[in-house]
Amino acid sequence: MEDALANRPHVIIVGAGFGGLEAAKKLGPENVRVTVIDRTNYHLFQPLLYQVATAALSPADIAAPVRAVLSKYKNVEVILAEVQSVDVEAKKIRTTDTEIGYDFLILATGARHSYFGHNEWEKLAPGLKSLEDAIEVRRRLLMAFEYAEKITDEAARKAAMTFVIIGGGPTGVEMAGAIAEISRHTLARDFRHIDPSQARVILIEGEPRLLAAFPKDLSASALKQLVDLGVEVRTATRATNLTETGVQVGNEFIPCRVKIWAAGNNASFVGKALGASIDRVGRVIVNDDLTISGHPEVQVIGDLANFSHQTGEPLPGVSPVAMQQGRHAARNVLAMIAGRKPQRFHYWDKGSLATIGRNRAVADLKFAHLSGLPAWLAWLFVHIVFLVGFRNRFLVLFQWAWAYFTFDKGARLITRNFQAEQRPPA
Amino acid sequence: MEDALANRPHVIIVGAGFGGLEAAKKLGPENVRVTVIDRTNYHLFQPLLYQVATAALSPADIAAPVRAVLSKYKNVEVILAEVQSVDVEAKKIRTTDTEIGYDFLILATGARHSYFGHNEWEKLAPGLKSLEDAIEVRRRLLMAFEYAEKITDEAARKAAMTFVIIGGGPTGVEMAGAIAEISRHTLARDFRHIDPSQARVILIEGEPRLLAAFPKDLSASALKQLVDLGVEVRTATRATNLTETGVQVGNEFIPCRVKIWAAGNNASFVGKALGASIDRVGRVIVNDDLTISGHPEVQVIGDLANFSHQTGEPLPGVSPVAMQQGRHAARNVLAMIAGRKPQRFHYWDKGSLATIGRNRAVADLKFAHLSGLPAWLAWLFVHIVFLVGFRNRFLVLFQWAWAYFTFDKGARLITRNFQAEQRPPA
Repeated sequence: MEDALANRPHVIIVGAGFGGLEAAKKLGPENVRVTVIDRTNYHLFQPLLYQVATAALSPADIAAPVRAVLSKYKNVEVILAEVQSVDVEAKKIRTTDTEIGYDFLILATGARHSYFGHNEWEKLAPGLKSLEDAIEVRRRLLMAFEYAEKITDEAARKAAMTFVIIGGGPTGVEMAGAIAEISRHTLARDFRHIDPSQARVILIEGEPRLLAAFPKDLSASALKQLVDLGVEVRTATRATNLTETGVQVGNEFIPCRVKIWAAGNNASFVGKALGASIDRVGRVIVNDDLTISGHPEVQVIGDLANFSHQTGEPLPGVSPVAMQQGRHAARNVLAMIAGRKPQRFHYWDKGSLATIGRNRAVADLKFAHLSGLPAWLAWLFVHIVFLVGFRNRFLVLFQWAWAYFTFDKGARLITRNFQAEQRPPA
Repeated sequence: MEDALANRPHVIIVGAGFGGLEAAKKLGPENVRVTVIDRTNYHLFQPLLYQVATAALSPADIAAPVRAVLSKYKNVEVILAEVQSVDVEAKKIRTTDTEIGYDFLILATGARHSYFGHNEWEKLAPGLKSLEDAIEVRRRLLMAFEYAEKITDEAARKAAMTFVIIGGGPTGVEMAGAIAEISRHTLARDFRHIDPSQARVILIEGEPRLLAAFPKDLSASALKQLVDLGVEVRTATRATNLTETGVQVGNEFIPCRVKIWAAGNNASFVGKALGASIDRVGRVIVNDDLTISGHPEVQVIGDLANFSHQTGEPLPGVSPVAMQQGRHAARNVLAMIAGRKPQRFHYWDKGSLATIGRNRAVADLKFAHLSGLPAWLAWLFVHIVFLVGFRNRFLVLFQWAWAYFTFDKGARLITRNFQAEQRPPA
């Protein structure tokens, strides 16, 4: 099999997120050899990561093994490795283990959160990009209530039951809503010395309104829905300092134990490693056909790309952009193999959704703006349809139905690291 | 509420495993004050831990938050803490945070695996007692195949695809069967350079037969069923040394990357801390009523107890023993409060089950010995019935049905520790 493949054009796809996976699926049935490289062994459905962080879903519910997703394409090989550098002149990439040559390269390594130069804040306020992030946030949330239940000092207890989310984009809004719900409903009856429904959830946004990428009426609706849930929203204000004991917000120091970062992204370092021009957050500035200048065999897609040819602004770092770019990049590869030119990319924006909680969401469907229950149903539908694999879809749907009717969230596990596990003295 | 409770007799239960949880449920509706202390926030359904380790189930599927399980009993308080010592004279226990007095104490802290004095083997061959253990074993299993796929050295590849399980009791048998199945079915089509179905699974048992606690005909059947699955079983032989690169078994050194320990248990250190007589594996030797000598207010149950009054041998460390002892200990507490004596415990042995794989199991139901499909159906039924919570029951059942018909196992995640997570160079 490998011998027959060796003569085909070799396409390397780095990153098995929404963009990379779509490109691989599109190229899977074609007369090419494809190598997909990712540093995890699973495709992560990032839009539902906040539900793992708030104990509604298990990690495996929103992750599908990359090998399994692509196993039916015999010309696609999957490698678990981290890319360290790209040599566009020699057409080679270097991973932690080895060096591999390519004919075509699709880079889709995404983004991590950015702390605006304050990397020391990462330990204090984890972000939400990976499963490990989500499990850590879940641990901190649940531990805060356990801690509050045990202590008697009133100020410390209040701080333990204050949750500050920094950043009022979709992730921040979703986290704030979910924490408010878990404290008001799921945990309400579980404790004897504290009342979890008294937890303070504070959402901080630097811009004058939440969900800045949404139309103004939906921002206002999101604000109202969050306030109804009991979330304190502070817009046009910034977190200027973070410490173990709290957050400095403008002139006020808010004592709090758990802080969650949802404020900014930095593109993967691979962009820099490429040597192409990058923007201020590390995204590669791509041509209107997704290629980089001077190297049409290299395409950059998804959160790693700065594509500004359509609106003058970079397209947002959301999954529909990544998926459409993934399919487009695959089509470009096939075109170039056939001796044609890569085509201009055009993003078809079907709208945006953000959920706030049970029956609460906003949806900008372009032709209509929805709030509350209709928006929430739209959100539900879209997320179930796009979740990879019937098994995951079903498990998620069942757990949502269960949570909807019982207010219970089943994945309330505080797990420790293996190495750090406390052992009894021998 | 707390004031009204303060005058009631105070029962502390340490450990929310099968024994502790049953005791708490039994005491929940009674006129006592109960404090349940556990070092995790969940009750773990240990008999299915091997399914988390082999990617069939998610951690949350076999774990239920202790608070949620007991939340309806308003006189039961749950504390997340680790017990460090017990002062039976002062009737006090000391946790990592505080000191608490009791009127009655039920100790149910269970066991960890024991390496027969070779504690350095623990890092080389993790056991299977906690969720962290299971996630680590899962990571090693899946990483072994990823590693084998990447390397070209034939000997190293063979070693990566050799899995040695040390200990042929129920856990060892279940792990060997599950690893054989995942390699022969689930992963079979996922790789391009290796054939996972060629993986060697070797099960080593020191005794002359597997499942020494089962009748001889069922041991023979288990052996046959494992061999049919392609497992190499070596009985009457011991692992005399473990290294990074392999296992010394008798005169043979078996090169292998992944080693799993299923050979022995040591009771929790709390037994020692009690100052009562303990046996060679740390279990507390209890009276025939589960109390310890001189202190009828202290009872020890489950894997932590050595109860030899019924058969002359200690009762086995299985969940039915723990559950029956938990209920009995609770009844004893109520009897003593009423001025009566604690009663002699009698274990009603309904039989034993061990599963080997799809349609493969053995069941000793006392009145009948079952093998293969009937035993497997019995195992399925018992485990679903006893799994805590409808939600977990349903999720597990669905995932088993899915796996049964598709050979797919959905929880194939290689997750890293948060602290150890590789970050891109800044």
